[in-house]
Amino acid sequence: MAESSASASYQPRPDAKTAQVLRDMANRLRIHAIRATYAASPGHPTACYSAAEILSVLFFHAMRYKQSDPENPHNDRFILSKRLSFVEMVSGSLGQELGTACGMAYIGRYFDKASYRVYCIMGDSESSEGSVWEALAFASQYHLDNLVTVFDVNCLGRGGTTPPKHCPNVYRMRCEAFGWNTFMVDGHDVEDLCQVFWEATQVKNKPTAIIAKTFKGRGMPHVEDAENWHGKPMVKERADAIIKLIESQIQTNKELTPRCPIEDTPHVSITSVEMTSPPAYRLGDKVATRKAYGLAVAKLGHANDRVIVLDGETKNSTFSKIFKKEHPERFIECFIAEQNMVSVALGCTIHGRTIAFVSSFAAFLTRAFDQIRTGAISRANINLVGSHCGVSVGEDGPSQMALEDLAIFRSIPDCTVFYPSDAVSTEHAVFLAANTKGMCYIRTSRPETAVIYTPQEHFEIGQAKVVRQSINDKVTVIGAGVTLHDALAAADDLAKQDISIRVIDLFTIKPLDTATIISNAKATNGRVITVEDHYREGGIGEAVCAALSMEPDILVQQLAISGVPRSGQSSKLRDVFGISARHIIATVKCLLANDSCQYL
Amino acid sequence: MAESSASASYQPRPDAKTAQVLRDMANRLRIHAIRATYAASPGHPTACYSAAEILSVLFFHAMRYKQSDPENPHNDRFILSKRLSFVEMVSGSLGQELGTACGMAYIGRYFDKASYRVYCIMGDSESSEGSVWEALAFASQYHLDNLVTVFDVNCLGRGGTTPPKHCPNVYRMRCEAFGWNTFMVDGHDVEDLCQVFWEATQVKNKPTAIIAKTFKGRGMPHVEDAENWHGKPMVKERADAIIKLIESQIQTNKELTPRCPIEDTPHVSITSVEMTSPPAYRLGDKVATRKAYGLAVAKLGHANDRVIVLDGETKNSTFSKIFKKEHPERFIECFIAEQNMVSVALGCTIHGRTIAFVSSFAAFLTRAFDQIRTGAISRANINLVGSHCGVSVGEDGPSQMALEDLAIFRSIPDCTVFYPSDAVSTEHAVFLAANTKGMCYIRTSRPETAVIYTPQEHFEIGQAKVVRQSINDKVTVIGAGVTLHDALAAADDLAKQDISIRVIDLFTIKPLDTATIISNAKATNGRVITVEDHYREGGIGEAVCAALSMEPDILVQQLAISGVPRSGQSSKLRDVFGISARHIIATVKCLLANDSCQYL
Repeated sequence: MAESSASASYQPRPDAKTAQVLRDMANRLRIHAIRATYAASPGHPTACYSAAEILSVLFFHAMRYKQSDPENPHNDRFILSKRLSFVEMVSGSLGQELGTACGMAYIGRYFDKASYRVYCIMGDSESSEGSVWEALAFASQYHLDNLVTVFDVNCLGRGGTTPPKHCPNVYRMRCEAFGWNTFMVDGHDVEDLCQVFWEATQVKNKPTAIIAKTFKGRGMPHVEDAENWHGKPMVKERADAIIKLIESQIQTNKELTPRCPIEDTPHVSITSVEMTSPPAYRLGDKVATRKAYGLAVAKLGHANDRVIVLDGETKNSTFSKIFKKEHPERFIECFIAEQNMVSVALGCTIHGRTIAFVSSFAAFLTRAFDQIRTGAISRANINLVGSHCGVSVGEDGPSQMALEDLAIFRSIPDCTVFYPSDAVSTEHAVFLAANTKGMCYIRTSRPETAVIYTPQEHFEIGQAKVVRQSINDKVTVIGAGVTLHDALAAADDLAKQDISIRVIDLFTIKPLDTATIISNAKATNGRVITVEDHYREGGIGEAVCAALSMEPDILVQQLAISGVPRSGQSSKLRDVFGISARHIIATVKCLLANDSCQYL
Repeated sequence: MAESSASASYQPRPDAKTAQVLRDMANRLRIHAIRATYAASPGHPTACYSAAEILSVLFFHAMRYKQSDPENPHNDRFILSKRLSFVEMVSGSLGQELGTACGMAYIGRYFDKASYRVYCIMGDSESSEGSVWEALAFASQYHLDNLVTVFDVNCLGRGGTTPPKHCPNVYRMRCEAFGWNTFMVDGHDVEDLCQVFWEATQVKNKPTAIIAKTFKGRGMPHVEDAENWHGKPMVKERADAIIKLIESQIQTNKELTPRCPIEDTPHVSITSVEMTSPPAYRLGDKVATRKAYGLAVAKLGHANDRVIVLDGETKNSTFSKIFKKEHPERFIECFIAEQNMVSVALGCTIHGRTIAFVSSFAAFLTRAFDQIRTGAISRANINLVGSHCGVSVGEDGPSQMALEDLAIFRSIPDCTVFYPSDAVSTEHAVFLAANTKGMCYIRTSRPETAVIYTPQEHFEIGQAKVVRQSINDKVTVIGAGVTLHDALAAADDLAKQDISIRVIDLFTIKPLDTATIISNAKATNGRVITVEDHYREGGIGEAVCAALSMEPDILVQQLAISGVPRSGQSSKLRDVFGISARHIIATVKCLLANDSCQYL
């Protein structure tokens, strides 16, 4: 059997000859690092130097993978959290990658049930980030014994010494208190490193932290363990001299080949997922879009067994509890740790292993904005669902109301932003998000709203719906979510007064259906009103204004939230903050009375 | 002496009679909690019940304060992190308040050097948030022995049991590993609680964590320690029955008066701060605005000794190192923990104790967006400074480039957003921010740019500068930061071709000087170009488009960044991403050739 023979050949400690080759490989990495920082200053050669032996032992002794095939699903996974120059990957801002590693290890243990292991290297400075401790708690909570993280304790950050100074014991105590198996090791001793990586494979039900004491710039005369070298390249003469010195310490010219992976990762497919049936709502049914999300994602779970949902102790409110009930083994409770939740989701989706939906209150997703931002930079394929948007949340109060989430997600490059207005369109948003590469965001609402689309309605990304129109329409009103229903109520009321208005449901805020907006705006004498349960800045109104900024004959009047809201009844708050049907009616009349009306 | 007599009367354990009154006060709080949740559903009566004895002992035995004067600067401070119904204050989203408490304790120990102590009550669920561990690390790093935090370990969160279940020992181990003095206590035993709060006053150089084992809903039949009661009010009959039961347990009708505070907090003034001299730059000097910030805030530090600066291991890049050098005792190194840095700043500024500037890479401030958002809800008075904005950062790569920070800060209610274009205006921005109540954000750039204003130039919030104009201007170009210099370069180049353009420097992006934009746009035939080193969404272009959306005769062409940038030379990236002088020139010509030009 491939596995046992490979296991048999994997010794806890390398023989003397192998150990020397590992040392030589480490020194070759050092030379490579110096050369790389010529090419792309500013690099981090000193930080590379502290980790050289760790990387050598990982790449050429501990890890199993096909060197020629880095995407092979059976490979052990490697995640670099600290910033190094000689590894080609997007590492985001600091302290995020352990969470990503947790996601990969979770999938390996509970979904793929495969032999691959996950290795993460972290710097000591970055462990000041709270997200690291969220990830440590998550990994021990879920017994991720296929996860090993190395703390490269070189003690020098970019601004001076790190808080626990050069005291690896502090990291040991903290990791143990967070439920990890922990080893302490000299991070420049290849034999000891081999030993602890082997021992980590024997530990059951606990992740392993290897606290490696290292020296920044190890091997560079005058640079080793000195401050003020972070991120600085050096002059060529000096670099050449260091390279020469390191070359003189290399004793072999042997290369080591990593062990082959065990090929037991199942093949999965996450493309072309079809819903098992059309939406089962009737026109006029009252359903909150947050609940429609829960029902839709649970239904989607029946269509593909790689659909997973992550939530952070809000499942009863986001309605992801419905998914949990129907697919308990595919629901990941991330507790109140939104940053780690997003990082875990990124890890779960790497290499197309799952289709992940991450739900929370939209306001709490602000907590993970940096993870979302850097996730987009690495072209992450995750779906985020934010419930409880806007003042329509009502009694829960301002800290629970997302009024800036559209501004956030619109600013994410290539992010698709859905804002469905009823249960049917919510189900379509979930389906489209599952089948769309890249990041998607779905904004859901707390209040119950009427179903306005039939089960047969067809939805596409970037395609708005004209939900009310007649030949005599005087103004185009653009709503989304709860405000679409206010716009429809306003249309009904105005119709009784013989004023007809056109109503548009955007469905996606990004991409925006500019063509539909322009043609309808022109059909209504260039009069447009946007109405949104979101701050004015970065929301629907600004998106529409920007899209129409080169159209001379269209004027846009924006209704949106200003100032800090307060707690209150949902419908009352919408009225107080100027986005209710009453305000839409008044704005329509004002526009008709005076085309340069400055109402509000 | 007031102090010693007060100390003498403060016994480690209360006498039997006092203990009974404390128990009765706890039960009165319970009754109050149930009544409060009638009025404002959804409340959290069960969570209040677990903390009733803790609050009773804190308010009526441990803390020193004037009940009639909650704003008194000599009072002990109380910060509630978990959400309770019977305390009137804005608590933000979870896990943030310990950082705020750290800021208050830091000011108490190092600036006010006063006797007041800081007490914080946290829930166990919220300790899943990484920001809690950032705060724990900060407090022990800075020996905040005037800080006590109580972990109310009731084990039930909103979604079920918390990860460490009902095992207070886990919290003890973690807090100790993070350097805290730790006590374990039965959170319903008023005598033990009195004892540990007293013992905490005797501990030197370490903050104290009190791990209180409690039961959610303690004292309510059938509700105590049961799941599914989180945030739920109960029917009136049941509530009345519980109130009756609790009332029957109250044995006294005595009230306790808290001990008086020790009056040793110094009076401070943070208003009307004047710069000691006008800006010392000469026209044409090449200075990065990030460096001008460092110089300006250091200068401001000489004008008022309550000016402080917080930074998270980026002082060498944000140039807050200049402040540190001149005012070392007023610089707070917060390490790589941006969430906690912002919370600490909030704590430092409560009750007007300091003028705080918080600097980091603008991209890393995304990490603290939730803290910023909830800070704004509580009308926080802090100044945030984000350096390294836009693709002009250059070689550091996309994860370091802030391209969404204007979208973020514009969405913060009442936040003043400065985007200075040279060293002189940066100095004015720092001065104005220091004297402006509420949140301010200053966006600074990495590249060196020419000084364009004289030392005598006057700046005001919401007042843009027309920096280039003539009678024949054909187009108005609006820039900010690096792009203003590109606009000026474009103007020079176009002038040689006999095309004159008007150039506007916005200075503040929020509030926006709409009047100046409109009058200049009209003077240039309604042609406007915005150019910004920021994503299109939520940035300057959208702000301008929205401000002009009711102006029929003005067209706005936006130049901004689209897509994920990459690493490269600053000037090259600006050109590749379409915001350089060359692109401005082309857009001007295109607009002039065809008024509905869709260039780009």
